Amino acid sequence: MASHPNRRILLATRPDGRARQSDFELVETAIPAPKEGEVLLRNTLISMDPYQRNLMGNGSSELPPMELGTPMSGPTVAIVEESHNPDFAKGDYVQTWTGWQDYAISDGSDLRTLDPGMAPLSTALGVLGHTGLTAWVGMTKYLDDMPGGTFVVSAAAGSVGSMVAQMAKLRDHRVVGIAGGARKIAYLRDEIGVDAAVDYKADDFEAQLARALPDGVDRFFDNVGDYMFEAVMPHFNLNAQAVICGTIAGYSDTGLPDRRDHLPRLLNLILYRFIQVRGFSILDHLDSYPAFLEEVAPWVTAGRIKYREEFIEDFERIPETFLTLFEGGNTGKLIARVG
Amino acid sequence: MASHPNRRILLATRPDGRARQSDFELVETAIPAPKEGEVLLRNTLISMDPYQRNLMGNGSSELPPMELGTPMSGPTVAIVEESHNPDFAKGDYVQTWTGWQDYAISDGSDLRTLDPGMAPLSTALGVLGHTGLTAWVGMTKYLDDMPGGTFVVSAAAGSVGSMVAQMAKLRDHRVVGIAGGARKIAYLRDEIGVDAAVDYKADDFEAQLARALPDGVDRFFDNVGDYMFEAVMPHFNLNAQAVICGTIAGYSDTGLPDRRDHLPRLLNLILYRFIQVRGFSILDHLDSYPAFLEEVAPWVTAGRIKYREEFIEDFERIPETFLTLFEGGNTGKLIARVG
Repeated sequence: MASHPNRRILLATRPDGRARQSDFELVETAIPAPKEGEVLLRNTLISMDPYQRNLMGNGSSELPPMELGTPMSGPTVAIVEESHNPDFAKGDYVQTWTGWQDYAISDGSDLRTLDPGMAPLSTALGVLGHTGLTAWVGMTKYLDDMPGGTFVVSAAAGSVGSMVAQMAKLRDHRVVGIAGGARKIAYLRDEIGVDAAVDYKADDFEAQLARALPDGVDRFFDNVGDYMFEAVMPHFNLNAQAVICGTIAGYSDTGLPDRRDHLPRLLNLILYRFIQVRGFSILDHLDSYPAFLEEVAPWVTAGRIKYREEFIEDFERIPETFLTLFEGGNTGKLIARVG
Repeated sequence: MASHPNRRILLATRPDGRARQSDFELVETAIPAPKEGEVLLRNTLISMDPYQRNLMGNGSSELPPMELGTPMSGPTVAIVEESHNPDFAKGDYVQTWTGWQDYAISDGSDLRTLDPGMAPLSTALGVLGHTGLTAWVGMTKYLDDMPGGTFVVSAAAGSVGSMVAQMAKLRDHRVVGIAGGARKIAYLRDEIGVDAAVDYKADDFEAQLARALPDGVDRFFDNVGDYMFEAVMPHFNLNAQAVICGTIAGYSDTGLPDRRDHLPRLLNLILYRFIQVRGFSILDHLDSYPAFLEEVAPWVTAGRIKYREEFIEDFERIPETFLTLFEGGNTGKLIARVG
């Protein structure tokens, strides 16, 4: 067993607004000992994701936040170091949710065994993990397939958005991707292969959008909400369908934007154009992993779905790297290789 | 064949805003003659409905308006006066869409034969017609059944709303009805039998609403939109579902209400509470009439679903009676008995 101590990055304080370095605390503890039925896990890959901000509390999530003083919660890939559970052997790789620490104990119920021969293990945190499952479930369970229809994706250069855009292409939709800045637009055009890319940071965003949507919008996979949804919604065709998979701001009942109220207009569109707008919980669909992997893993290994990962090698730098997610600059899934 | 001429009330002008008496013109023409395969229909019951305003044009509907100079479009019950179509016999009663006139020709494709022994013929225009089908389709096809859950209906004293409220009770939901004014609230409590009735015209509307929703909202059948939806939406539970079946205002892209923007808040609720909001077209569900009647007609004939009708006997008064719909005073389905 490794001799170095068990490093853990704890949630020290709940952020008020944007998270800061001082919200985290690095501590070193003993390596825990598994009991009968349990396994000892050592994290090898640790994911950093925007939604983790919501787990810290004082955010817009409706779910209870994680406890203060516990390791920052999040998905990981771990290796089984010691097993007292017949379902797992020493050396097995698993995808789990042990967060920002070296070692953890599990009774096995929250582990998904990985096949290192199928795809790089890091994909279990992104394109073949929760990110990919989120994209796939949103598309296949909450948007009726409509080959030939116009499919719009916002934050299309992001980890969920780029996957949705590529799956929509593979399903023969006409795909319009929205992202911010010339670099992301070039990525959408040259790498992701969208039919049209629209820059929301451009002065003529709405005109660009209108030009990209000569036949309106049939499906909208929205990772932004807010002004983005309001820009797209006038283009909804009859029977259009939208999924809300992310929003950029956590408005309370009182903290509403100081601009004219767009909600009655949306309700009219829903009424007269027979539209549906839906959210979903990925936790209701974890049993879809096999069906998801069966369809998507071959696309990933064949290079038909591209993805980007950025690695850091230094456990201590996880908090500061996580914080860069909220500056909009990074272009791939952020993963720490540890141990 | 009847000897009096064929009276027709034509759409003379498209209203700008609220419809007026001068938008209509009464003319008298010859009775048309059916050809081979056709039937001559004489209207006996003519419906007056709020959505007919949208058919007149310059409204919020996305559908093309009816043509100027043609009889005002709308649902009717007619008797077959002369038949050259083997599917219909003289004396048959049918539900059709011949609008505000005495006589019309049909090739039979738009006729639904009525059984006068099943229920009063007038119900084919309301509780057992499009009104009832709209309520039933919205409930059964667009809201998952959830016995024991809290079901909210707005405009609950109206023709669609009162039916939805009663069907929700028959499906063992806890039903909260919203309506305006003491008379409608008493009707909801005493006749419709809701579990709680909330008066949106009261000064303490939002407090009343909160008291009526101690366990939040699971299903919302909204006939109002606008401020009504905005008042109900903070109470949405996880996995709440809403159907938009009516809105009170036809907001254009530019004519948005001058108050803070509630749409980003709704998108956050959709994201974090896994909500769905949907519209639907009753025209996609006309083949559900048999299933609808099979379930609902016995409830109506047994008195388990109550409904209200108001009759006028004078064809010429149809326009002025129609216009009263927009003053909010009437309390039942408006029907003209003619011929």
